Amino acid sequence: MSVHPQPARLLVLFGATGDLALRMLWASLYDLQSEGLLPHDLRLLGTARGELDRAGFQAVVAEAIQRRVAVSELREEVLQSLLARIDYIPAELGDAASANRLCARIAELRTGDIVYHLSTAPRFYVPICQILAAHGLNDPGTRVMLEKPIGHDRASADAIIDGVGRCFDESQVYRVDHYLGKEGVQNLIALRFGNGLFEPLWNARYVEQVQITVAETVGVEGRGDYYDHSGASRDMLQNHLLQMLALVAMEPPVAFLPTAVRDEKVKVLRALRPISADNVAAETVSGQYTAGAIDGVAVPGYVEELGRPSNRETFVAVRAHVDNWRWSGVPFYLRTGKRLPKRCTEILVQFRGVPHSIFGGGAQRDIRPNALLIRLQPEERIELQLMSKTPGLDRHGLRLSRVALDLDFHEEFATQPRRLAYERLYLDALEGNGTLFVRRDEIEAAWHWVDGILGAWHQLEITPRPYPAGTWGPSAAMTLAERHDHHWRD
Amino acid sequence: MSVHPQPARLLVLFGATGDLALRMLWASLYDLQSEGLLPHDLRLLGTARGELDRAGFQAVVAEAIQRRVAVSELREEVLQSLLARIDYIPAELGDAASANRLCARIAELRTGDIVYHLSTAPRFYVPICQILAAHGLNDPGTRVMLEKPIGHDRASADAIIDGVGRCFDESQVYRVDHYLGKEGVQNLIALRFGNGLFEPLWNARYVEQVQITVAETVGVEGRGDYYDHSGASRDMLQNHLLQMLALVAMEPPVAFLPTAVRDEKVKVLRALRPISADNVAAETVSGQYTAGAIDGVAVPGYVEELGRPSNRETFVAVRAHVDNWRWSGVPFYLRTGKRLPKRCTEILVQFRGVPHSIFGGGAQRDIRPNALLIRLQPEERIELQLMSKTPGLDRHGLRLSRVALDLDFHEEFATQPRRLAYERLYLDALEGNGTLFVRRDEIEAAWHWVDGILGAWHQLEITPRPYPAGTWGPSAAMTLAERHDHHWRD
Repeated sequence: MSVHPQPARLLVLFGATGDLALRMLWASLYDLQSEGLLPHDLRLLGTARGELDRAGFQAVVAEAIQRRVAVSELREEVLQSLLARIDYIPAELGDAASANRLCARIAELRTGDIVYHLSTAPRFYVPICQILAAHGLNDPGTRVMLEKPIGHDRASADAIIDGVGRCFDESQVYRVDHYLGKEGVQNLIALRFGNGLFEPLWNARYVEQVQITVAETVGVEGRGDYYDHSGASRDMLQNHLLQMLALVAMEPPVAFLPTAVRDEKVKVLRALRPISADNVAAETVSGQYTAGAIDGVAVPGYVEELGRPSNRETFVAVRAHVDNWRWSGVPFYLRTGKRLPKRCTEILVQFRGVPHSIFGGGAQRDIRPNALLIRLQPEERIELQLMSKTPGLDRHGLRLSRVALDLDFHEEFATQPRRLAYERLYLDALEGNGTLFVRRDEIEAAWHWVDGILGAWHQLEITPRPYPAGTWGPSAAMTLAERHDHHWRD
Repeated sequence: MSVHPQPARLLVLFGATGDLALRMLWASLYDLQSEGLLPHDLRLLGTARGELDRAGFQAVVAEAIQRRVAVSELREEVLQSLLARIDYIPAELGDAASANRLCARIAELRTGDIVYHLSTAPRFYVPICQILAAHGLNDPGTRVMLEKPIGHDRASADAIIDGVGRCFDESQVYRVDHYLGKEGVQNLIALRFGNGLFEPLWNARYVEQVQITVAETVGVEGRGDYYDHSGASRDMLQNHLLQMLALVAMEPPVAFLPTAVRDEKVKVLRALRPISADNVAAETVSGQYTAGAIDGVAVPGYVEELGRPSNRETFVAVRAHVDNWRWSGVPFYLRTGKRLPKRCTEILVQFRGVPHSIFGGGAQRDIRPNALLIRLQPEERIELQLMSKTPGLDRHGLRLSRVALDLDFHEEFATQPRRLAYERLYLDALEGNGTLFVRRDEIEAAWHWVDGILGAWHQLEITPRPYPAGTWGPSAAMTLAERHDHHWRD
C-alpha cells in the first residue's frame, strides 16, 4: 500500500468477552495504559454476542483486569482511564441489521486509522471481513489482526487467507503468533544481529545441531474437544516452533522491518526439507500422554481427559533440515508436547567440538562442545557453555571442566516489569508495524511442510506412541536424536 | 637429550634464605606437601651464605611458612613432614673449599634426578653452574631453574644463557616466568584450545584490538636501587607482558608439550614489528610517577622514594603489532606500571563491530563491539561482553544494551584453594616438564624487541613523562590508543 499507516485511533475487539480477551488482551491494554503507551486519543470498542450495556461491559473488563493484575500493582486511576476509552456494542454477525448497527457504530467512532482484532473462532474471520468491506470499512487506513489458528491445513488456511484477502490487502493483515511478541524471541534477533561474534559461527561449518523445545506440563483439561481437532503439530509446531526456527536460521535481514525480516523467514520455511512417507518414520515421532505424575501429582491420560478414544498426538518431535548453503547437514531438532516434566521454551545451538585436542588423551575425552542456550520460559536467560581449566595442580597436562557464562535477564534488568506478549503486538499493530506478525507466504510454507508430516502419518497409519505424563515423550523421541549421536538437553 | 627425565629426588635451593624463598618458595613447598604432591622420597637442600645449622635453618623456614600460611590452615604435622625433608649447608661460592663441601653434600644426598633452583642474584647463575659442572653434577639427570631477570638486555642475557649453556643442555634449563604458573594464564590456554568457539574468531578478520594490562599500586619503596637499574620495560614488559602476548597470539600448538608450545610462542615474539627511532615516539609512551594518592592515601613520587634524580620509567605503554597473517593490522596495546589506580592483570580481546546494523539509526549507535575479558588479578574471571535487547516496549525497532556473561572462578570452583604460581612450577620442574618455562630463543627474541625500544628512547633522548601516583600513567598513553580510535579499559 502506498498509504503510510498512522497510529490507530480506534481498536475494535471482536470476541471482547472471550477467553483470550479476558485472560490476556484487556490486561495487556491495561499495562499499556499504565505506561502511557496507548495513543492518547485511542478509543476501544468491544463487541461480542452478549447483550451488555457499556457499564456492564466495563464491569466485565474491570473484573478481568483485576484477576490478572496483582493487587499491589493495580492502580484505580489507570483502570478508570482505560475504561473511559471503552465502548461496547453487542453484535450477531449472522443478522444483517445487527451487523449494520455495528458498522455504523464503528463509522461513528472513527477519527483516523482503525485496528480490528479478530479474537473469535477462525470460521468468523472471513464473514467479519466481508461485513466490514461491505460497509467500506476496509480502506487503507484500516488493519486487521487475526489470531491463530489460520486454518487446519494448507487448504483451509488458504481459504481463510484468500477470503480475508478479498477484503483487505496483505499489508493490512496482521497475523498474530504471540511468541513473536515475547521478549526472549526478540532478544534472539538482538543477539544474532547486535553481536559481531555469533554470525561467523552461525552456520553448518561451526554448528553441530540446533534444538528447539516448547514443553508444557499442562494437559488438555477442558479444552480436549478443541485440541483433539488439532494436536501438537498444528497447535504448536506449525506456528511457534517454525517461527523460532526461522528466526534462528534466517540470513541477516537488511533491516529490522516487516518486509526484510519476513522475506528472510519465508526463505527458511521454504528451504525446509520436505517430510513425506519416505522419511517420516525416520525423522518424526508422535506421542500421546497416558496417566502419570507431574511434580508428584497423579494426572490422568489424554484419553481419560477427552472422554473417548483418540489418535491425536499430544507430542511431536521432528528432525528437520534447512536445505541451504548455511545449514546444509545441520539437524534442527524440534519438539513440543503436553504433560512433559517441566514447562520450558528454549533454543540450544550446539557448536561442533574442537577439531583436535592439544591436551592429549585424558583431557580430550573431557572436551565437550560449546553451546549457546537461549531460554525463553520459564525465565529469560542466555548461557554460553565453555570449557575452562579446572583449577588445581593436575599432573600431565591441563584438566578441563565445563562452565557456563550466563545472564539472567530478570536479574540483570530487575527494574523492568515482565511484559505480556500482547503489549508489544498491540503497540505494533496500532502503529502499523508488521515486523512481528506473520505474512501469508510464511503461513503457507509452514502449513505445506506440516501437511507433509500429517499426510505421511495418515498414509502409513502411524499413530502416536504412548508416553506417561511427566516424561519427555516416547522413548523413540530420544532415539531420533541418539541415532545421530545427538542428545536432547533435559 | 635422549634421557627421559625422572621425578626429581633432590631439590637444591640456592638463595634459600632470600626474599623470594621466604615469601613464596617455602610456602609453595608447604602447600605441595600438604596436598601430598611432592615425590615421596624428595629431599630438600637449602644453601646460602648464612652459617646456620640444620635446626636453625628449619626454624627460619618454619617461620617463613607461618607468616605466609593462614593460621587456620597451617597443620603442624604437614609442617613437620616438610621440615623432615630439609637439610641446609652454608656455602660461600667464591671459596673453593666451601663450594667443594656443597657439591660433596649434594652428591651424598643424591639418589636420582636433581633440580637446582637458583634463587640468587643473576650474576651468580654462571658461577654456580660452573661449580656444579666442575663436580660432574650437570649430567642429564639434573635440571636447573633460573629466576628472572635473565640479563639486562640481549647481550647480557646471551652472556648468562651461553655461560649456563656451557654447563647444562638447553633441555635441562628451566627459566621461570612465574606468570606462566598462574592459573589464569593456563586458563587462557584452556579457553583458546578447549573451545571450538573462539578459534574461528581469533584473528585479524574478527579482532579489532587486544589489550594487556599489568597494573600495580605499589611503588618501588625499598627496592629503588634494584628497580632503577631496570625499569618497567625490563622488569615487566620483556617477560610477563610478552609471554601473555605470545599465548594470546600464538597458532594452535599440536600438543600442550614443551617444544610444541614454545615453538609457537617464539614465532610470535619474532613476528613482533620492530620498534626503532622511526616509530618509537608514535608507538610507545614511558612515564615516571610523581607524588599522588592511592586509595586516598598520599604517596611520594619515584624520585623521592629513590632519593636521587632518575630518568628510569616506572610505566610503559606500547602499541605492538604481530606481523603475520593471523594478526596483520591488529594492535596489541601493552601497558604496565607502578602506582596505578588499582592492582590488576587482564587481557581484553575486543572484536570488531557488526558490519551493518539492521536496527537502524538509534540502535546502531548503541551497538558496541563484543569483547572477551580475561582477568588474572586480583580475581580470576572471564567475561564476555554482548549486546542484548533492552527489555521493554521501545518503539521504532529494538533498543540494545550491553550485558556481560561472566564467570568468577573463585565462586565457581569455591572448594579449590588459590594456588601460588610456584606450586605449579615446582611440580613441573620436579617432573621434568618444561612447557611452562621459557626457552632460550624466547628470551632472546623478547630482549631483541625490548632493546629496540630502549635503544630508540636513548637515541632520541626520550625521557619518561611524569604521571601522578594513582593515575593510569601519562596522558600520552591515552592518546596512544585514542589516535587510532581505541580506548583503554579502565
